[in-house]
Amino acid sequence: MAKILMKGNEAIGEAAIRAGCLNYFAYPITPQSEVAEYLVRRMPEVGGVFLQGESEVAVGYMLFGAAGAGARVFTTSSSPGISLMSEAISYIAGAQCPAVFVNIMRGGPGLGGILPSQGDYFQATKGIGHGDCRLLVMAPASVQEAVEMVMMAFPLAEKYRNPVMILGDGLIGQMMEPVEFPDHLKTEPSNKDAWASNGMDHRGSKTRNLVKSLFLDPVQLNDNNLALKAKYERMRAEDVRSAAYNIDGDYPVLLVSYGTMSRVCRTAIDMLKDEGIEVGMIRPQTLFPFPEKAVADAAAKPSCRHVLSIEMSMGQMVEDVDRCIRGRVPVEWYGKCGGDIPTPEEIISVVKARIAGKE
Amino acid sequence: MAKILMKGNEAIGEAAIRAGCLNYFAYPITPQSEVAEYLVRRMPEVGGVFLQGESEVAVGYMLFGAAGAGARVFTTSSSPGISLMSEAISYIAGAQCPAVFVNIMRGGPGLGGILPSQGDYFQATKGIGHGDCRLLVMAPASVQEAVEMVMMAFPLAEKYRNPVMILGDGLIGQMMEPVEFPDHLKTEPSNKDAWASNGMDHRGSKTRNLVKSLFLDPVQLNDNNLALKAKYERMRAEDVRSAAYNIDGDYPVLLVSYGTMSRVCRTAIDMLKDEGIEVGMIRPQTLFPFPEKAVADAAAKPSCRHVLSIEMSMGQMVEDVDRCIRGRVPVEWYGKCGGDIPTPEEIISVVKARIAGKE
Amino acid sequence: MAKILMKGNEAIGEAAIRAGCLNYFAYPITPQSEVAEYLVRRMPEVGGVFLQGESEVAVGYMLFGAAGAGARVFTTSSSPGISLMSEAISYIAGAQCPAVFVNIMRGGPGLGGILPSQGDYFQATKGIGHGDCRLLVMAPASVQEAVEMVMMAFPLAEKYRNPVMILGDGLIGQMMEPVEFPDHLKTEPSNKDAWASNGMDHRGSKTRNLVKSLFLDPVQLNDNNLALKAKYERMRAEDVRSAAYNIDGDYPVLLVSYGTMSRVCRTAIDMLKDEGIEVGMIRPQTLFPFPEKAVADAAAKPSCRHVLSIEMSMGQMVEDVDRCIRGRVPVEWYGKCGGDIPTPEEIISVVKARIAGKE
Amino acid sequence: MAKILMKGNEAIGEAAIRAGCLNYFAYPITPQSEVAEYLVRRMPEVGGVFLQGESEVAVGYMLFGAAGAGARVFTTSSSPGISLMSEAISYIAGAQCPAVFVNIMRGGPGLGGILPSQGDYFQATKGIGHGDCRLLVMAPASVQEAVEMVMMAFPLAEKYRNPVMILGDGLIGQMMEPVEFPDHLKTEPSNKDAWASNGMDHRGSKTRNLVKSLFLDPVQLNDNNLALKAKYERMRAEDVRSAAYNIDGDYPVLLVSYGTMSRVCRTAIDMLKDEGIEVGMIRPQTLFPFPEKAVADAAAKPSCRHVLSIEMSMGQMVEDVDRCIRGRVPVEWYGKCGGDIPTPEEIISVVKARIAGKE
Repeated sequence: MAKILMKGNEAIGEAAIRAGCLNYFAYPITPQSEVAEYLVRRMPEVGGVFLQGESEVAVGYMLFGAAGAGARVFTTSSSPGISLMSEAISYIAGAQCPAVFVNIMRGGPGLGGILPSQGDYFQATKGIGHGDCRLLVMAPASVQEAVEMVMMAFPLAEKYRNPVMILGDGLIGQMMEPVEFPDHLKTEPSNKDAWASNGMDHRGSKTRNLVKSLFLDPVQLNDNNLALKAKYERMRAEDVRSAAYNIDGDYPVLLVSYGTMSRVCRTAIDMLKDEGIEVGMIRPQTLFPFPEKAVADAAAKPSCRHVLSIEMSMGQMVEDVDRCIRGRVPVEWYGKCGGDIPTPEEIISVVKARIAGKE
Repeated sequence: MAKILMKGNEAIGEAAIRAGCLNYFAYPITPQSEVAEYLVRRMPEVGGVFLQGESEVAVGYMLFGAAGAGARVFTTSSSPGISLMSEAISYIAGAQCPAVFVNIMRGGPGLGGILPSQGDYFQATKGIGHGDCRLLVMAPASVQEAVEMVMMAFPLAEKYRNPVMILGDGLIGQMMEPVEFPDHLKTEPSNKDAWASNGMDHRGSKTRNLVKSLFLDPVQLNDNNLALKAKYERMRAEDVRSAAYNIDGDYPVLLVSYGTMSRVCRTAIDMLKDEGIEVGMIRPQTLFPFPEKAVADAAAKPSCRHVLSIEMSMGQMVEDVDRCIRGRVPVEWYGKCGGDIPTPEEIISVVKARIAGKE
Repeated sequence: MAKILMKGNEAIGEAAIRAGCLNYFAYPITPQSEVAEYLVRRMPEVGGVFLQGESEVAVGYMLFGAAGAGARVFTTSSSPGISLMSEAISYIAGAQCPAVFVNIMRGGPGLGGILPSQGDYFQATKGIGHGDCRLLVMAPASVQEAVEMVMMAFPLAEKYRNPVMILGDGLIGQMMEPVEFPDHLKTEPSNKDAWASNGMDHRGSKTRNLVKSLFLDPVQLNDNNLALKAKYERMRAEDVRSAAYNIDGDYPVLLVSYGTMSRVCRTAIDMLKDEGIEVGMIRPQTLFPFPEKAVADAAAKPSCRHVLSIEMSMGQMVEDVDRCIRGRVPVEWYGKCGGDIPTPEEIISVVKARIAGKE
Repeated sequence: MAKILMKGNEAIGEAAIRAGCLNYFAYPITPQSEVAEYLVRRMPEVGGVFLQGESEVAVGYMLFGAAGAGARVFTTSSSPGISLMSEAISYIAGAQCPAVFVNIMRGGPGLGGILPSQGDYFQATKGIGHGDCRLLVMAPASVQEAVEMVMMAFPLAEKYRNPVMILGDGLIGQMMEPVEFPDHLKTEPSNKDAWASNGMDHRGSKTRNLVKSLFLDPVQLNDNNLALKAKYERMRAEDVRSAAYNIDGDYPVLLVSYGTMSRVCRTAIDMLKDEGIEVGMIRPQTLFPFPEKAVADAAAKPSCRHVLSIEMSMGQMVEDVDRCIRGRVPVEWYGKCGGDIPTPEEIISVVKARIAGKE
């Protein structure tokens, strides 16, 4: 299949359609409104629906309603919009429905700015909503990877009957790259008869399903939460993903970085290699489950003396990196959070300072 | 001052008034609606205001507005209600305003149940809103401690110009205990002239303040976030709090537990002591900043072979415990999440199994 | 075409589809929720859209948006729901867009009751919204007539680029009658290119249209209102409709009645004729424009000594009847407003009292 | 008491306070936002409350709630805002609660313009909400009269337990005139114990009141509506008000005009008198009840050959004028609706044309 030059936001919209998702609910917010602009034209062409909610709170519950009825659904938003959906996300997780959320992060907290950011790592991976709920979170580093992750998100959401989030940043959304929509990622919606609300016609039938997150009986609620916990463990076992870069040789410094930030890191690594300095990198592709083993193993190489978590935030993923390295080597954060992306030169400078033993 | 027998939820409301907070905005939700029921009568008696918002989204922004105008403000809610406030919390943190949030947690995710829970640990300590925002989070283990933490919350919120959260559970809110409202915790609102919006009369004056979270310039946004990061570091240095129990001797097992759950653990520890088995406990009183050193030091005792994080959730704090122990001894979670609270006997059984080497 | 036995509410929904209206926005309210229940199944079968708004306020603006884009649109509601749409109705009238509103009246004011009523006559014909706006209002007296009026409503709304209202009552909605959907009432949407918003593709083209009700220049606003006034005059000239009953002979009493109420009046007239008492009736089929000439002419017959406006309200149409008879004979109201419909016997008794000279 | 120079909108706000109304709920809209700007400062000074609702829909229900609890309440808005309150107004009328609404009319329909208008006459006097509900409507022609009508509105609303509306126009709100607040118009709230909701403390007591508009039993709903009808008749008998101008002599032309428009008419009458042409005027001060007898009597003078309803609308009051003159002389409308007010010269020209026998 030929590659097409597309803007990230548009490619994300098209990927959802190619993945068989014909239900898109959203509320516009910079820097991802182009997804809605693209789909408001495109969805009718394929018999799909784009409905703009009256707020992000409403959009979250539109997703819950459509997901509970068994439809493939997704939304796209940016940081403040995702906060407004957090109650609904918790409800969808508690009721065990599949749904896909794309967060093209902007600077925060609050209104923050409209330039790229990775400031929602904690929210996405730990505390998106109240209660014991977690999302499967994927972080693309290119438009092509965004396309593939969106296409993979729907069957993963259905496999786990759990929300899946694509955590991108404004640069992924805005840049143009040649993309293809791989046929092998087209999937059929899985059998929803076992759990989706199937309406009045089934009243009294054996297969009548009830979609709910309310369990007033503490034993039932505990059981539901144990089922969630088991799913999260299964995500850790079956669907953790990461990419390694330049880890075959010996390196004194290991970088951990994801998304757009990791592309800059790769450039810095290449430039350092030209100077004869080896630096390895693990790029988490799933942020939850976090690639604990990949990071721990790469840091366990005897040559490795320093680990740097490079982030477009004030240091969030660094906690997960630190946790899995368990004190073997020092773990530090480096980054910026305001829209300016650290340059390769800045990263090179930080790496060299670590090697030279300065903080 | 004489002690009065009060229900937790009512004592929380009274404590805010005693602390000089006369602005309460809220929306009712079980299991903390008694705070509103108490304050709807009590606030007018002291010249204060209770305004019920049309939703928790509105309540969050009522707090932002009043806080931005320099008033001491607080709200009380329970898990789903806090999710609905998460955008506003991020705005308040970004704009550096003081505000106090009380979350009397109920079971989740989604509607969950109405019995006690500790399922919002992650949300409160990591991902309450989008962007690099964090709250100072305190967790009371008794009605008296709830009173004191509420009274302390207002000057702390003003010290840091940051939201402070009291993270309780339904049992704290529902049980009756004798309480007093210590005079030394009564504080005057700190000087708000330096930052609060002071209205049209100051137009053109040098002291005119602007309350905002929007920084379109990436350098300014980065600076604002560095200021937030510096505040969070200062919280770690100056306001981390924990209580130790039975850690003077040698113990093979260390428990880490907070809130209502820690009271059951203390009973279990006493019962085990009667059998000649020593078990220590660190009870975090602040969840963020997390008492990393206290936990690490207690686990560093040579006799300690096992650390158990006992939670009324499916295992959230265990990540923070694990992180600060850095692999020295195994860290495990034990708990329930549905409203039933683990009994002393169940905890004793888990402790003994660890000592006997069984999982 | 064969007749089908249908409930009024369902026939109303089907009539809209047969009339070529594929856009239905609504919010459920007794006693017309069956329209939505019917169309939620039926619309998808014909490629149409049913979207439930989050409130009647929203529904009103959904109609405005779709109408402004040139689509045939309609909603159904009942009294309180219509009040919530009144701002939007005024906007649609001011912006000169076509839209069809069906009001299946229930008892009022306020929540009132859920039994049939005609209490919204004034609202529909005079004061539905602020400003100089009026609707073309049709009142069916049978399910078949409801079908025909709904089918006629769309081309009339387009002829005048003005909202059209079908004012029915709960009995019309609930009763079952054999109906047909006349082919000659199927119409094509009229040319909307002259006025409907036609999107970005036309930017800069000569045919670009702007849909708006805001005219800050007083001359333009006056012109717009003169254009509305001219339309209302044209409605009076071209689209006033009424049906006469038993007015060929001489009658001492003339009834004026519409909708379900007029059917009871007809029965009373037949029963009085059996007793040798002649009573005539004018049944307004359009309430605005009001059939002033038909009523005045029928009351001008020399034998006519009394006019009675029989209504399921506390006397609203009686003002219009009184106005066009100009004092020639006494005009009185008789009716009930609570859900009980006056019986033929009660009407006979009132008529005989008038003839006997008693009040 | 000394006169103070005040802007109409501010005088309206002050008049409510002087009348003993300490509860003001509103949402800003041009051209009456100065009322809110005035009261946001003034209400706290007198221990009153100003609460801005999240929309006019909310404001309407805030009034219902506070009125149902027995408080004196009022709001101010302008045309579109009043439409949004129409459901609530119907509820308040149906539940028989007192409340005062000030509508400073702007041009319509829809957004219309922000200049003065009288386009909401029909809405205010006939169809403000669904069901058999009517308001007592007063129309001031000066700032002083606006003050007095606002002060009178509260005891009238309580006398009838019905909403009262002050129907002004943008000019009344914007112009400055010397005003006084007459002491004799200060009133005590009437005994609300007989009907207002009095809370839980009265549970089980004989005086427990229920505030509601729902009557599912048709007999009860009919009785409630008969009670409303009786109140409207009583308004017609006891509280109809109008002012006459130059009706002592013989005049060939009678003007009927209200509000700001009537002031221009008075100037035209004075100028015509200078030319030796007599023209009389009836100025309705209450629009509902309409001063039918005053208008009919003035038109019954043998010299009178023409009646003109002069309005800043496309002809609404003319229907009421026409109705009460019953065909004795021709009734015509003259006016403008866009913000420009007809000048004395234009009115003189119209009057002369009537006398000359031209249309």
